[in-house]
Amino acid sequence: MSKVSERQLERYPLYLNHLIALRDSGVTTISSPAIAKALKLSEEQVRKDLQVVTKSEGKPKLGRDINELIDDIKSFLGYTSKKSAAIVGVGHLGGALINYKGFEDFGLNIVCGFDIDSKVVGKSINNKEIYSIYQMANKVEELGIEIAILVVTSEVAQQVANMLVNAGIKAIWNFVPVHLNINSDVVVENINIASSLAILEHKLKTKEIDE
Amino acid sequence: MSKVSERQLERYPLYLNHLIALRDSGVTTISSPAIAKALKLSEEQVRKDLQVVTKSEGKPKLGRDINELIDDIKSFLGYTSKKSAAIVGVGHLGGALINYKGFEDFGLNIVCGFDIDSKVVGKSINNKEIYSIYQMANKVEELGIEIAILVVTSEVAQQVANMLVNAGIKAIWNFVPVHLNINSDVVVENINIASSLAILEHKLKTKEIDE
Repeated sequence: MSKVSERQLERYPLYLNHLIALRDSGVTTISSPAIAKALKLSEEQVRKDLQVVTKSEGKPKLGRDINELIDDIKSFLGYTSKKSAAIVGVGHLGGALINYKGFEDFGLNIVCGFDIDSKVVGKSINNKEIYSIYQMANKVEELGIEIAILVVTSEVAQQVANMLVNAGIKAIWNFVPVHLNINSDVVVENINIASSLAILEHKLKTKEIDE
Repeated sequence: MSKVSERQLERYPLYLNHLIALRDSGVTTISSPAIAKALKLSEEQVRKDLQVVTKSEGKPKLGRDINELIDDIKSFLGYTSKKSAAIVGVGHLGGALINYKGFEDFGLNIVCGFDIDSKVVGKSINNKEIYSIYQMANKVEELGIEIAILVVTSEVAQQVANMLVNAGIKAIWNFVPVHLNINSDVVVENINIASSLAILEHKLKTKEIDE
């Protein structure tokens, strides 16, 4: 499998989104230059990105079949292979995520939640059972959970991550604003909502001072 | 105000988080090298980052007062000045975000939601009224809304962003995986959850193929 950079990977959901919107409005074929123009990217970049995911060459003037391209990007990103995932930490954000139905579009099937709080353990949210984190090892195997969506507090994030690694999880999607030390081949991808908000608020503050 | 890079800004929430955890466990002073070690950053980088946000010099061997440093970072990021925000698009993710109580820690006060769907307009979620997007111009002024948290569908994102700009919004925190064209001095910060998930899933797929 050819190596692609993270910057490049970040663009595929943008392509996908744009192509689905076009298809839904009745478009059947699309060219790289048209995509480049709409998304404000260079034609060269779009052409290279698409070559990685699709074997379809596209016809001169007509471009590529839009449905084929959509399927190729989804398959490349792994959205077409269903994977079981669990929400680890069912607090404010975890509780919101366990209710979020959009994950299915990305091939993620949220099968359960884990928490340590006896007030939520044993209950169900959105038809997903909440198990104790001490049942993690059993449940990861029993339910075939591959991906953990980590939304615990900062204080316990490393400890819970270690438990997940020991339980045999394959990937951790980390929403906690801490650096996780994982000495294994478990995939870790960080999404830092707080950092994004910090950038927005700082830009806003700087602008107001400059005015 | 000194210019700082986005990469640098992204680190402050990590510092803040680490410092709050330390303070809550009874630590009263902290040195840059200790922070650097805990967060796996270089001492030089931490020293430079902290110099930007605090005037406190820190005492040799003891380091800086941890409460002072926490306050300085919060103030630098703008978390101490309360700002009114609205959730624009109260679907799956928007509905989750309007229920999320953690925004208060970042100085964000979610005052209301906006949607176009007559099934939700006029209702309240978590005590926040949902207004029609056609009331946007009035409500932004009346309620002093500075920040829009944009979680509408891709198809209407640009159109709704234009409405927000016209309504006098100061900043858009964009959760929609589209490129927004904003020809004004409105601050736009993108957070792309889909791209982060795409990176995770692709890494996981690549790893499985390599094995």
